Amino acid sequence: MAEEEGITVRKSENFSDWYTQVVLKAELADYGLVQGTIAIRPNALKIWENIQKIFDERIKELGHENAYFPLLIPESLLRKEAEHFKGFVPEVFWVFYSGDTKLGERLAIRPTSETIINNFFSKWIRSWRDLPIKLNQWCNILRAEIKSTKPFVRTSEFLWQEGHTAHATHEEAEKEMLQILEEYRKLIEDYLAIPVLVGKKTESEKFAGAETTTTVEALMPDGKALQMGTSHNLGQNFAKPFGIKYLDKNGKENLVYTTSWGISTRLIGGLIMTHGDDKGLVLPPKIAPVQIVIIPIFYNIKQKQKIFKECEKIVESLQTVGLSVKIDSREEYSPGWKFNHWEMKGVPIRIEIGPKDLQKKQVVVVRRDIGVKNVVKRNTLQKKIPILLDNIQKNLFSQAKRFLQDNTTTVKNYEELKKVLESKGGFIRAPWCGSSHCEEQIKIDTGATIRVLSLKVEKTSGKCVYCGKAGKEIAYFAKAY
Amino acid sequence: MAEEEGITVRKSENFSDWYTQVVLKAELADYGLVQGTIAIRPNALKIWENIQKIFDERIKELGHENAYFPLLIPESLLRKEAEHFKGFVPEVFWVFYSGDTKLGERLAIRPTSETIINNFFSKWIRSWRDLPIKLNQWCNILRAEIKSTKPFVRTSEFLWQEGHTAHATHEEAEKEMLQILEEYRKLIEDYLAIPVLVGKKTESEKFAGAETTTTVEALMPDGKALQMGTSHNLGQNFAKPFGIKYLDKNGKENLVYTTSWGISTRLIGGLIMTHGDDKGLVLPPKIAPVQIVIIPIFYNIKQKQKIFKECEKIVESLQTVGLSVKIDSREEYSPGWKFNHWEMKGVPIRIEIGPKDLQKKQVVVVRRDIGVKNVVKRNTLQKKIPILLDNIQKNLFSQAKRFLQDNTTTVKNYEELKKVLESKGGFIRAPWCGSSHCEEQIKIDTGATIRVLSLKVEKTSGKCVYCGKAGKEIAYFAKAY
Repeated sequence: MAEEEGITVRKSENFSDWYTQVVLKAELADYGLVQGTIAIRPNALKIWENIQKIFDERIKELGHENAYFPLLIPESLLRKEAEHFKGFVPEVFWVFYSGDTKLGERLAIRPTSETIINNFFSKWIRSWRDLPIKLNQWCNILRAEIKSTKPFVRTSEFLWQEGHTAHATHEEAEKEMLQILEEYRKLIEDYLAIPVLVGKKTESEKFAGAETTTTVEALMPDGKALQMGTSHNLGQNFAKPFGIKYLDKNGKENLVYTTSWGISTRLIGGLIMTHGDDKGLVLPPKIAPVQIVIIPIFYNIKQKQKIFKECEKIVESLQTVGLSVKIDSREEYSPGWKFNHWEMKGVPIRIEIGPKDLQKKQVVVVRRDIGVKNVVKRNTLQKKIPILLDNIQKNLFSQAKRFLQDNTTTVKNYEELKKVLESKGGFIRAPWCGSSHCEEQIKIDTGATIRVLSLKVEKTSGKCVYCGKAGKEIAYFAKAY
Repeated sequence: MAEEEGITVRKSENFSDWYTQVVLKAELADYGLVQGTIAIRPNALKIWENIQKIFDERIKELGHENAYFPLLIPESLLRKEAEHFKGFVPEVFWVFYSGDTKLGERLAIRPTSETIINNFFSKWIRSWRDLPIKLNQWCNILRAEIKSTKPFVRTSEFLWQEGHTAHATHEEAEKEMLQILEEYRKLIEDYLAIPVLVGKKTESEKFAGAETTTTVEALMPDGKALQMGTSHNLGQNFAKPFGIKYLDKNGKENLVYTTSWGISTRLIGGLIMTHGDDKGLVLPPKIAPVQIVIIPIFYNIKQKQKIFKECEKIVESLQTVGLSVKIDSREEYSPGWKFNHWEMKGVPIRIEIGPKDLQKKQVVVVRRDIGVKNVVKRNTLQKKIPILLDNIQKNLFSQAKRFLQDNTTTVKNYEELKKVLESKGGFIRAPWCGSSHCEEQIKIDTGATIRVLSLKVEKTSGKCVYCGKAGKEIAYFAKAY
């Protein structure tokens, strides 16, 4: 098996090659035949299933319901909101034929579902009693990526959830957008252990068709930002062309306000990049499909039986406290091979148990994040492992948080901005006058864009980093995936 | 809201119209703009989520893992297994363009994923250590349906699971196919309360590319059969063209044996048709998203507060025993409106509680399946409701089982077969000589096909119902969806 070669390049040496090797060798994904497509293998899909479970439960608590909408969108429908169409049309896969029959109208494979869902909203919403509608769908999305595709991070097909809601008032829609943004932050920081900047997008960076786009942005080890999720207040931009109206309590007809929001399998890419190391994947315990792997070590059959029995007792005692444990009892592989194998796969804790450990009523516990080995008494294991997992989770987050802080630089002028971008990258805090022209010029010059503006405007007395006029607020610039 | 009109046609009068009304008025689905597509609304998607949960857990216990494969299949790949291509090509949606760029090769939207998954198998399988591979994916599937589409039952896009496995031996593949078939039977009979015939398909009815196709077939109230799920032994039919080889323990190269199997959102169609009645949907308790709905009845605020408090206590006591309960506390609707509303939605048990009930420490319990009302003492509720749910589950199954038995007719000659088909339909047991010619002629004459042959050949001394030669075995004929 190819994976057993181990990663042959350092993360610090060639980040891009390192990433590809982890993806392939930890069997997270494999390349498809169509440009930019991947097969998501079980090791990665289990992470996605965990993300789904956490987030799905949470949005259901908040009153959302899941639904499923058609993949194919007639061109005329996609055209109904002009900005939206313009934004997505270059990436659309078009269907012309079914069997041998040419279709009357070409059909888009959904690049996102605002148009098709808002069209159903216009049929389903009649009165104030029907509001709010809060729907979500878990599905596949296709956007043709031509240049620089990267598994999970930028692919022509990905899995995501897209929430779509309709409300009676603008305030409610705004609240919904912000509530979901906070849920995204919690998911990404508390479970994936990836710290993020939370804020909103500028006019030129917002979602095609949105009134306001909010975002959570993380910083990758190569100094580039990664957009982890977005939540949009669509205002009445879709309600108008789709005619989504309701009768209020006074019998008056009003347009609704809609929102949409999404996170995707891109999160897996962020997870790999943020926490992985030269040995492969490193998974935060709260999102790891397997939290503890037990490796039995023995030299003869008599030992084997005793040790297997002990392993099963350990599994039972750890499962009792809600942990996910696996024994690797395969006999065609050596313990050393297994150590490498599970390190590559990112399992947070390894427990080794051999004949001497059995005798001494102990096991060896190895942390994946920092590699430290400890001998732990058998009778304290059930208590100590949950604490250790918690420590690993916290350590991964604070490591990433430190990196984010160390790589967020405040600059006063354009020269400084360019110097920081060229040397270490990261987020750059700088005063901005609010003009799209300055934003655009900086992008052309340096490749950096404004990733986030704080939700509550960060006032500044400084001068715009580009034009030198009075700064309107602090903006966070970065190069991005 | 349109649903509140109630169903305006009897199930026994116009089955097809009745079905459409239940689908729309119980808000299970709505029609999409593209021919044969539907939006699956929350009430139906919750049923699908329950099916997913039950089956997903079970196949994971049996050692399967979930993965996700690309939606788009290059034409050349789809062509690799000739029978398979021929079988699916009339239904394929073809992608020619991404954005404005014409593609070098046209891409099929997956009508099923054998080709793309077996192609990955050929990369991933090297040695006997890699076998078996047992993967599953939950995804959307597109097959262009031109004539007679029907929500859930026959749609151009549907949701399903497709299992794909590779094994070292033919025996293992056969075992896998049969194990899954038995899991399908259990899911459909034990949870959906729909009795099925279990068996295999004839040569002409089997899956395009399969060596053997097994199936579970149900009988709908209009006398037509509905295929509920299929499980295929693909033998080496895919392993050969895709070159899926492994080195055995002796270092010898062998081809693998593969299987595939699937169930889809069509199951929801079967559920609606089998159990629904003139008031709408009827859901078996084991699959119902809401098992019990509580309707508070009050005439003033003082009563309201007391009754709401009591309702919450009931919810808590029923949730304690693992039941799914909901209070309909909306004040903009009357109790009578709510009774109809939840009957339409198929909730198995309704609990009514008014001021007098509160005083007498009792509630009124109404069964959805047979409409019977009973007064139940509050302090016995926690004990009685689970028993009642169990009774409802059993009653729905035995009702459907009786229907299946009453509509399975043994015939001796062709005249009888035609007469039964024209009068009541259903399954027709008849001796068959085993020739495709007879099978085909019967289909041309009557529209009926052989739905199932028993797994263990049902020997017969009778004569072939069509040609009169010696019967080889008993076949089950029916018209089908």
